[in-house]
Amino acid sequence: MNDLKLLTKIKKPLTIDNITFDNNNLVVIAGPCAIEDYDSLFQMATLLKENGIHFMRAGAYKPRTSPYSFQGLGEQGLKMLANIKEKTKIKIVTEITDISDLPLYLDYVDIIQVGARNMQNFSLLKALGKTNKPILLKRGFGNTIEEWLLAAEYILLGGNQNIIMCERGIKSFETSTRNTLDISSVPIIKQLTALPVIVDPSHAAGRSDLIASLSLAAVAAGANGLLIEVHPNPREALSDKEQALGTNEFLQLNNQLQGLKSYLNANNIHNNF
Amino acid sequence: MNDLKLLTKIKKPLTIDNITFDNNNLVVIAGPCAIEDYDSLFQMATLLKENGIHFMRAGAYKPRTSPYSFQGLGEQGLKMLANIKEKTKIKIVTEITDISDLPLYLDYVDIIQVGARNMQNFSLLKALGKTNKPILLKRGFGNTIEEWLLAAEYILLGGNQNIIMCERGIKSFETSTRNTLDISSVPIIKQLTALPVIVDPSHAAGRSDLIASLSLAAVAAGANGLLIEVHPNPREALSDKEQALGTNEFLQLNNQLQGLKSYLNANNIHNNF
Amino acid sequence: MNDLKLLTKIKKPLTIDNITFDNNNLVVIAGPCAIEDYDSLFQMATLLKENGIHFMRAGAYKPRTSPYSFQGLGEQGLKMLANIKEKTKIKIVTEITDISDLPLYLDYVDIIQVGARNMQNFSLLKALGKTNKPILLKRGFGNTIEEWLLAAEYILLGGNQNIIMCERGIKSFETSTRNTLDISSVPIIKQLTALPVIVDPSHAAGRSDLIASLSLAAVAAGANGLLIEVHPNPREALSDKEQALGTNEFLQLNNQLQGLKSYLNANNIHNNF
Amino acid sequence: MNDLKLLTKIKKPLTIDNITFDNNNLVVIAGPCAIEDYDSLFQMATLLKENGIHFMRAGAYKPRTSPYSFQGLGEQGLKMLANIKEKTKIKIVTEITDISDLPLYLDYVDIIQVGARNMQNFSLLKALGKTNKPILLKRGFGNTIEEWLLAAEYILLGGNQNIIMCERGIKSFETSTRNTLDISSVPIIKQLTALPVIVDPSHAAGRSDLIASLSLAAVAAGANGLLIEVHPNPREALSDKEQALGTNEFLQLNNQLQGLKSYLNANNIHNNF
Repeated sequence: MNDLKLLTKIKKPLTIDNITFDNNNLVVIAGPCAIEDYDSLFQMATLLKENGIHFMRAGAYKPRTSPYSFQGLGEQGLKMLANIKEKTKIKIVTEITDISDLPLYLDYVDIIQVGARNMQNFSLLKALGKTNKPILLKRGFGNTIEEWLLAAEYILLGGNQNIIMCERGIKSFETSTRNTLDISSVPIIKQLTALPVIVDPSHAAGRSDLIASLSLAAVAAGANGLLIEVHPNPREALSDKEQALGTNEFLQLNNQLQGLKSYLNANNIHNNF
Repeated sequence: MNDLKLLTKIKKPLTIDNITFDNNNLVVIAGPCAIEDYDSLFQMATLLKENGIHFMRAGAYKPRTSPYSFQGLGEQGLKMLANIKEKTKIKIVTEITDISDLPLYLDYVDIIQVGARNMQNFSLLKALGKTNKPILLKRGFGNTIEEWLLAAEYILLGGNQNIIMCERGIKSFETSTRNTLDISSVPIIKQLTALPVIVDPSHAAGRSDLIASLSLAAVAAGANGLLIEVHPNPREALSDKEQALGTNEFLQLNNQLQGLKSYLNANNIHNNF
Repeated sequence: MNDLKLLTKIKKPLTIDNITFDNNNLVVIAGPCAIEDYDSLFQMATLLKENGIHFMRAGAYKPRTSPYSFQGLGEQGLKMLANIKEKTKIKIVTEITDISDLPLYLDYVDIIQVGARNMQNFSLLKALGKTNKPILLKRGFGNTIEEWLLAAEYILLGGNQNIIMCERGIKSFETSTRNTLDISSVPIIKQLTALPVIVDPSHAAGRSDLIASLSLAAVAAGANGLLIEVHPNPREALSDKEQALGTNEFLQLNNQLQGLKSYLNANNIHNNF
Repeated sequence: MNDLKLLTKIKKPLTIDNITFDNNNLVVIAGPCAIEDYDSLFQMATLLKENGIHFMRAGAYKPRTSPYSFQGLGEQGLKMLANIKEKTKIKIVTEITDISDLPLYLDYVDIIQVGARNMQNFSLLKALGKTNKPILLKRGFGNTIEEWLLAAEYILLGGNQNIIMCERGIKSFETSTRNTLDISSVPIIKQLTALPVIVDPSHAAGRSDLIASLSLAAVAAGANGLLIEVHPNPREALSDKEQALGTNEFLQLNNQLQGLKSYLNANNIHNNF
C-alpha cells in the first residue's frame, strides 16, 4: 500500500456543514434506491429530517445490470431532489453515472455518490477530484481494499479531500446473501486514514431481514455511519424491493444504532479512531 | 435449505454444565493455537479461569497445510489438557483430526472441535453424531452457509444435538486479511435454529490488530460467543503468531465484549434470538 | 512454495501396469458418479474396455453435502467393482471416505481417489502415504494450488510417489457453472513436477453441454488425462444427472480427445512436459 | 438470462473489412500493453503485419489502479497509432477510458476496447451503442457471465451489433495467477450467440510462462481469437512486464495456434459454433 501517499496523511475528519464525520457521531443516510414519485419522497424527507436524519439518498440516474430495468428519472429526478432539499433542508446523496452530468450534481446535491460499478472509472474520479464536493466512494464488488483506497487516492490527488468510503460487500461464492459484507474493511481503513468509513448493509445483504444485525455490527466495528435503503412501502419498490426497510422499522433501528454508538463512546471503545 | 430437517427444529439452547449458550450469555473461548509447553498453558488456564473465562482452547493435534509445519504434541498434548482441566476446572476445547482418536477426546475434553478442513469429513461427522459430546463445528473456508448447516445436520441425524456453529471466515479475492469474515452468517443461522453461533475473528483476520473490532462486530451481530487466540507471548508462538492477542489485551477486550453484550440485552436488542 | 521438497524432485512419470502417465498418452477415466446396479455397470465396463478406455470410475462410498442424499452402496459397491474388474480387466478408480475402509480399497481397487472435501484430511493423506497404491488427489474446491500441492507432499512424505493430481474446479462468484475450472493449474503443476495432472470437467462445469469444450481445452493446456462422468442414461442417474455424458457421446468425445493429443504430440507442442 | 433479447438473436458473424470472426478463422490481436515510443511500435506493427497478424493492440489511455502509475501517452499515443495504421495497414485496437474521447477513437482506431473496469460503465456502453465501430468488450474481473452479456446487450440496444466478447479472467482466492481464466465462458457464450468470443491469457495469468498453454486451451475450447500482450523487450516494459511475450515467442505461438485451429476445423470439432 505504498501508493497511498495522500490518504495516509489525512488527519482531520470530514465536516459537511455542521456535521462532523468523526468518532463522536454516527451519520446515517437513508432513503429509497430510486426516486419514484415526488410526494412519497417529500414525505420521507420530512419524516427523516424530523427524526434527526440529516442525509437522504435516492437515485435519479440508476446504473442497472440489465438495459431493460428501470433506469431512473434522470435530470427530472435530480430536480425533485433539489426541490425537496430546499423545502426540508435535508441533505442529498445521489449517484453520478456520467461525467457530463457533473454540473447538475454540483448545483443540486450535497454528496455525490460513486457507485460500485464506477469505482475504477478513473476519468470520473479525476473529474471529481477537481471539485470540492463531498464524494461517497462505494467499494467495487470485485475490488480489494487496496484498489478501493487507490481510487480514493485519485480523488485526493486532484485536490478534493472530502471523501467518504462506503463498504457495500464483495462478491464471493456464498449465495445466501447478494454480496459478502467485508466488515474487516472498516477497521483496516480506520487504521490508515481519518477519511470516514460507512457501511451499506442493504446492498451487501440484499435481504431486509439482515439489515439490523449488519448495521449494529458495522457500528461496533467502528464505522462512522451507515447507508440504509428505506422505502415507504418496500414491497412495491421499483428496484431492490427485497432489501429495503420500511420507514418505521428504519427509525427504530436508527435509535438502536445511535444508542449503541453512545454506549461505545461512553466506554471509550474505538476512541483511538 | 429443505434438508435442514432437524436443525430447524432445535428450539432449546445448548447447556454445558451450568453454562447456557443463549442470548443472556456471551461465551468466550480463549487460548493458544497449539499447546507448546505445560507451564505456560497451566498459567494461562489459571489466569483465564480467575477472570471468568470458562473455556480454554489449545490444539494437541494440528492440521497444518504443510507437512513440514509443527504438527502438535498429539496424545501427550491431550493429556496435558486433561491434567490442566482437573487442576483448574477450566473446560477444554480442542480439535480432532482423526476418528481413531475419538475415545481419547471423549475422555479428556469438554468440546470437540471439527476444524474448517474437516467440515465435510462426513465419516467424522457421523462418528461424532453417535456421541453426546458437544461439538464445535467450524465453517469450512470454501463452504457456503448451507453446506455448513448440512454438516451440522449430519451430526444431528446421529442423535447429538450439542453443536456450536463457529464462523471463521471464507476465502475471497481480498488479500489484506487471511480470510473474509462472513458476519452475515451469524444472523442467518440465528433465524433458522437455536444452535449457538460463535465467531473466530483470529483465523478470519489473521492479524491481531483487527481482533477487537471484529469481536465487537460479532457480538453486535448477535453471536453467542467468540473463539479468540491468546498467547502468553504472541511473537514467540509456534503457529499463527501474527494473529494471537497477548493475555492482557485479551482480558481487556473480554471486558468490553461482556459490557457490550449486557448493553444489548438491557436494551432488548436481539431479544428475538 | 518452499515446502514442495519431494514433489519438485519427481522426474519419472507414473506407470500403472503398462500404462504410463506421460506426454505420449492421454489417460481417460470414465464412469458414473455412483454405482447404481451391477448390470449397467458391467455393461459400461465392457463397452469402455472394448473402446480402449482402461480405467473406470464409480463411487461406492459417496460424500454427499446433505445426509439425506443417496450415500452410495458402500462395501457392497466395492465388491461389485472388484467383480467387474476381474471379469473385464478394466482398472477401477473409486473414492475413499474413511480411513478404516483402507484395507478394502487396497484389495479391490487400482486407484484410490481422495475427493475434494478430503483434500486436507491429513490423517487420510498420511495413511495413504504409507501404501504404494496410486492415489488420485482431487483439488479441494476451496483450496489454492499451493495447498493442493502440499497435500500431495503429505502423501510423498509417507513414501508413496504414485499420485495423480486432478483439477476439478474451484468456487468463485460465477454462477453459470457449478464451479470454475481453473485451467491454469495444469501448466503450473506441469512446470513443477512430473506428477501427472488430469482434469475433471464434469464436476467443474456441472453441465453436460460444456464437457466437450472443457475436455478439449484441458488436453490443449497439457493435461495428462481426464476424468469424465458417463452414465448409460444420464437423465435417470441417482446423483449428478445434469453433468453426465451418455455413453455414445463420451466415446465420440474420447476419439476427438485422443486425436487432439496425437496432433499436439506430432507437432511437438508441450513436448517439454 | 431472460434479458438477452438482442444478443441471442445475433446469427451472423462479425466482419471487419474482409476479416470474418467465425469458426473458419482464428483472429489474433497482439501488441504491447502501453504505447511507449513510436519506433518500437512501428517495428512491431511491421513485423506483425508481415506475419499475417491483422490487428495490433496498444494502450494510449491506460486505466491504472494507482494514480502514480504510468497513465499512457493519451492523444499523442492515439495519433501514433493512426500514423502506424496508415503506414502499415495494420488494424488498431485500443482502449477508451473517457466518453469525451470518443470522436478521436472513431477517427483513429478500428476496434474500441472497453476495459474490465469499465464493463459496467453504462454511459460509455450507451454512447458506443450509437456508433457502428467494432467494440471489444472485456469481461469485468468481478462480473458474472450474465452481467457481461447484459453489458453487450446495452451496446446492441443502441443499434451497434459489432461486438467482440473478451474473456480475461476473474478474481478468485487463487493467488498463483493474477486472475483466474474462466475458460467455461467461451462455450457458454458460443451456445447463446454468434458474437465472437476471444480470450486474453496475458491479463488472466499475469505470467508469461502460462500464455502458450492458456492460448492453446482457449482455441480448443472454441474461442474465435486471442488478445496477447507482446513486447519487443518484455523485461523493460513500462507496465505488465511479467506477462508479455517477446515477439519471436509470440510468432512461434501464433503458428501453433493457427495450426491447432486448422486441425480442429479439419476434424469438424466445434463445427456447430
